[in-house]
Amino acid sequence: MEIINVIGLLAAFLTTASSLPQVIKTIRLKETRDISFWMWAFLSLGIFFWLIYGILRNDIPIILANGISLFLVLIVLGLKIKYK
Amino acid sequence: MEIINVIGLLAAFLTTASSLPQVIKTIRLKETRDISFWMWAFLSLGIFFWLIYGILRNDIPIILANGISLFLVLIVLGLKIKYK
Repeated sequence: MEIINVIGLLAAFLTTASSLPQVIKTIRLKETRDISFWMWAFLSLGIFFWLIYGILRNDIPIILANGISLFLVLIVLGLKIKYK
Repeated sequence: MEIINVIGLLAAFLTTASSLPQVIKTIRLKETRDISFWMWAFLSLGIFFWLIYGILRNDIPIILANGISLFLVLIVLGLKIKYK
């Protein structure tokens, strides 16, 4: 595999997985005061549009990465609304 | 402009701008207890690799979006370390 593809995959993996530590922390802590609602609202909407973009372009990596991201980000947004 | 490009631009704008409300909130609040350090560490590294990927592919939209994102995300990571 070319180095450029390795870097792209590493980038996609890290940005997709990055919300997981926040999900775990928020489930444990049950506190979301320091977290910005608008950040997670914009992020959810943005990732939703990336998912639509991937579906329209029939691009499996974009669909997969953003599908997983959207799932994690919506959990944080839901917890933010729940523990407001 | 085709609808698919409008959706892609909207997606890029929203995900890039999403960290800005968190930057503003954290500067005002000076509290980061509920924010996951590992989320922002993974996100910074992931966006850094997206930037390298964009530079290697000579892809201006990827370079621009991730350059702005990296700047905002590193501010939040710095504030998380500062107010730990």
